[in-house]
Amino acid sequence: WLLISSLVGFWRQDLMKNPAQAGTKRPFIAKLSSHKPSAYLVSKLRKYEELHKRCGPNTESYRRTLKKLSSSHTNGTTDCNYIVWTPSNGLGNRIISMASSFLYAVLTNRVLLVDHGTDMAGIFCEPFPDTSWLLPMDFPLTDQFYSLQPGNVHSYGHLLKMNNLDISTVSQAPSFLHLYLAYNYDKHDKLFFQDQNQGFLQKIPWLILKSDQYFVPYLFLIPSFQQELGKLFPDKEAVFHHLVRYLFHPSNQAWGLITRFYQAYLASADQKIGLQVRVFNRKASPVSVVQEQILGCIKKEKLLPQVDEHKLIASPSKNKTSRAVTIASLYPEYYESIKSMYWMNPTVNGDVIGVYQPSHEEVQHYGNNIHNLKAWAEISILSLSDVLVTSSWSTFGYVAQGLGGLKPWILYVPAGNRPTDEPCPRGKSMEPCFHFPPDYHRIPSTKERPDAGSPVPHVRQCEDASNGIKLFNS
Amino acid sequence: WLLISSLVGFWRQDLMKNPAQAGTKRPFIAKLSSHKPSAYLVSKLRKYEELHKRCGPNTESYRRTLKKLSSSHTNGTTDCNYIVWTPSNGLGNRIISMASSFLYAVLTNRVLLVDHGTDMAGIFCEPFPDTSWLLPMDFPLTDQFYSLQPGNVHSYGHLLKMNNLDISTVSQAPSFLHLYLAYNYDKHDKLFFQDQNQGFLQKIPWLILKSDQYFVPYLFLIPSFQQELGKLFPDKEAVFHHLVRYLFHPSNQAWGLITRFYQAYLASADQKIGLQVRVFNRKASPVSVVQEQILGCIKKEKLLPQVDEHKLIASPSKNKTSRAVTIASLYPEYYESIKSMYWMNPTVNGDVIGVYQPSHEEVQHYGNNIHNLKAWAEISILSLSDVLVTSSWSTFGYVAQGLGGLKPWILYVPAGNRPTDEPCPRGKSMEPCFHFPPDYHRIPSTKERPDAGSPVPHVRQCEDASNGIKLFNS
Ligand SMILES: Nc1nc2c(ncn2[C@@H]2O[C@H](COP(=O)(O)OP(=O)(O)O)[C@@H](O)[C@H]2O)c(=O)[nH]1
Ligand SMILES: Nc1nc2c(ncn2[C@@H]2O[C@H](COP(=O)(O)OP(=O)(O)O)[C@@H](O)[C@H]2O)c(=O)[nH]1
Repeated sequence: WLLISSLVGFWRQDLMKNPAQAGTKRPFIAKLSSHKPSAYLVSKLRKYEELHKRCGPNTESYRRTLKKLSSSHTNGTTDCNYIVWTPSNGLGNRIISMASSFLYAVLTNRVLLVDHGTDMAGIFCEPFPDTSWLLPMDFPLTDQFYSLQPGNVHSYGHLLKMNNLDISTVSQAPSFLHLYLAYNYDKHDKLFFQDQNQGFLQKIPWLILKSDQYFVPYLFLIPSFQQELGKLFPDKEAVFHHLVRYLFHPSNQAWGLITRFYQAYLASADQKIGLQVRVFNRKASPVSVVQEQILGCIKKEKLLPQVDEHKLIASPSKNKTSRAVTIASLYPEYYESIKSMYWMNPTVNGDVIGVYQPSHEEVQHYGNNIHNLKAWAEISILSLSDVLVTSSWSTFGYVAQGLGGLKPWILYVPAGNRPTDEPCPRGKSMEPCFHFPPDYHRIPSTKERPDAGSPVPHVRQCEDASNGIKLFNS
Repeated sequence: WLLISSLVGFWRQDLMKNPAQAGTKRPFIAKLSSHKPSAYLVSKLRKYEELHKRCGPNTESYRRTLKKLSSSHTNGTTDCNYIVWTPSNGLGNRIISMASSFLYAVLTNRVLLVDHGTDMAGIFCEPFPDTSWLLPMDFPLTDQFYSLQPGNVHSYGHLLKMNNLDISTVSQAPSFLHLYLAYNYDKHDKLFFQDQNQGFLQKIPWLILKSDQYFVPYLFLIPSFQQELGKLFPDKEAVFHHLVRYLFHPSNQAWGLITRFYQAYLASADQKIGLQVRVFNRKASPVSVVQEQILGCIKKEKLLPQVDEHKLIASPSKNKTSRAVTIASLYPEYYESIKSMYWMNPTVNGDVIGVYQPSHEEVQHYGNNIHNLKAWAEISILSLSDVLVTSSWSTFGYVAQGLGGLKPWILYVPAGNRPTDEPCPRGKSMEPCFHFPPDYHRIPSTKERPDAGSPVPHVRQCEDASNGIKLFNS
């Protein structure tokens, strides 16, 4: 931790060209990453920034490429190609898929434009200097975005299906294609991930993507990307860490929420503990069971001192550590019970425990800007923790761990009436999980995973999702 | 404020014989009172302590006096006389009436014994050295306590009524009498406050009192007590302050709650603001109106900086003051909205505002020990404030202001649909209000208050209760 009393950017000084670009001066906290980006990544980002500046909204090139959309097929090459990202699912899902789309853009020399609509408006700063990544409002295809669903007629999957999965038979490339890579994509949409289908996409100036997944791990399984990815990311576990810190910079409004919370509640604590409690199904996971699981987690992993129910006041001790626990959850009960426990009882070692919860929104809202603003602030606040507990399967937690460069303890929110024996084992990598990868990487005859002799040993099964894959330093 | 790193008692070092008596060593905060007790008060307390030690439970004298209860009338004098306090209403009411009863005991050479039942068990320390103020469980009259109601047959009021209000006609004094001095007492019970009726009581070894009032101000109107009271309390506004700090010392369990809350949430703040929001009638006082009233109070009295809704982050400034706001209320809404306001917006001056609420019990419980423990802890936490806002008519708030030696801002919780113009004028005295005094002090013909030429100018109308009276430094 650094406490910087004036100036500089937030978390990505190391990745940024001009740290001041992202807005006004920001007095305050900044966690310098202990994971240094490769020089190659940095130079690649500089090159990307140049490309984006040249091709970004309202440039000559942008307008020229836009014209292609009027004709059904492309003729000749374009100097700028684009990938348009469209939102799907909650903020965590959106951030991991934007980060994946950006890496895909970098790998394929495309320019990433994002449709943030109104509900994400003003929560991030522009990431690229002297240009914008926001899709202009008058983009002609926006009324098609809602039809981005499995198997829609403009999708690459559909095109492959119509051509018996042999893209080489398609002579004329369309001016745009939809890529549908969200959790419920079908087997044709998945064909995007086959190396032999990547080449054709180079001819398409506009790709319109909808995804809620962190599909980066699969890019590492596509042979034609492997060499470049190897040069960009010698450290396999820091891919998302670098991407998310580079791309997602809190807007001044979000920054206000983050710093006010930090200064009012966390700044003076010796240790900051973040605890994300994401309950996907409140019926299946009764409050009391989840509470027991959390207490089991704290105890088993020694994340916080136990309380002594037989003592009224802690024994006097010289150096009491003060610990600030920030709980992020849609619901208030977990916060209430932990806060009350540390109020009603002393800790065994005299540590002073403060418990905080920024908000409890009760339900996940869609299309609500303030709701997303709070979610982004809370993700960022969690990322400022020294010790982080996330919830299994939660992309909200993935973003916090990635931003913070933290290997989290992964809380298993039990579905059922009993807490489990391993309530929150430590994660081995700070990368997010790609929950719904295709299974081409499995051994074709048995559908089993490749054994240890795999050519790509750093792509392995996620800790928290048995069908998912994720990057590890092997 | 003093931060004392080891030893000594809590708030009443200045009044205590042996500061260590009240329990184990207490590392921590202690607010030394800026109101010094008179030497006469201190010596009187020492004398009282001797009396209590000599007459307390399980002494020879106690047993001897107990025997008198077997005969319906007293014969001869006793060396120890008692006043037995019994509980009525919430904790604030109980504390102010115990304090009043204690002062009455001191003035009349009685020994105060209190019936704390189970619901107040273990929340206070014993106040008097080497003895106990707790009424022994086997006290013979406990089964009569529930019948302590207006006009009961053992009451002094009833006795006066039966004797046409002329006590001199009663030849034989009973061995005990009930004094009913709670809010709904009748005109006969009120006769207790007439000077001519006090003498008779001296013959009664056992007085059993039920009261929820701070009846001290009326003692100042009784001529036979006036001289002594004048010597004991040269500072008229510090009567309750001295009494409550002397008598009510948090038990170790309560002390644990107070110190843990203080250390976790308040210790590092530059300024501590206590805000008590007591809503007696939730139907009559809609949440939104009360919230508006609170905001009006903060603004008009400049208790906290306003927020700037047009700014996203505060302008950088060198010396930001950090302020910790502790809200005590049965309900969570007031806390939630103020906390959210200071999270979502910066303050106009850059001050950092943390907002806390120890508990929100929702309903007032009776007979619940933990509930009373929390109430006592919260009263004590409020008393540790630098700036205190109490709610009008609330005895809970009176105790906090008295303990803290603070002149509160008195929040008027509006009954109706609009906030009021003077949401929280500053109180002029830190004394509690006696809500339901008799009206003998009024001008008999007109029932008006005596004008400024009153012989007792320091007893005047309360700020928050037009029929109530309270002590002021005139
Ligand atoms: N403010 C806040 N919002 C939350 C929290 N948990 C869930 N949400 C909301 O629900 C959405 C969950 O979707 P997402 O971020 O994709 O995470 P996931 O569903 O856990 O993978 C968030 O974006 C928020 O809108 C929380 O702890 N705090
Ligand atoms: N813990 C807690 N309890 C409260 C609060 N407000 C009211 N109560 C409960 O309600 C009772 C109110 O009675 P009392 O203390 O006599 O105060 P009053 O009714 O406001 O004069 C308290 O003793 C508590 O039991 C609060 O802010 N915190």
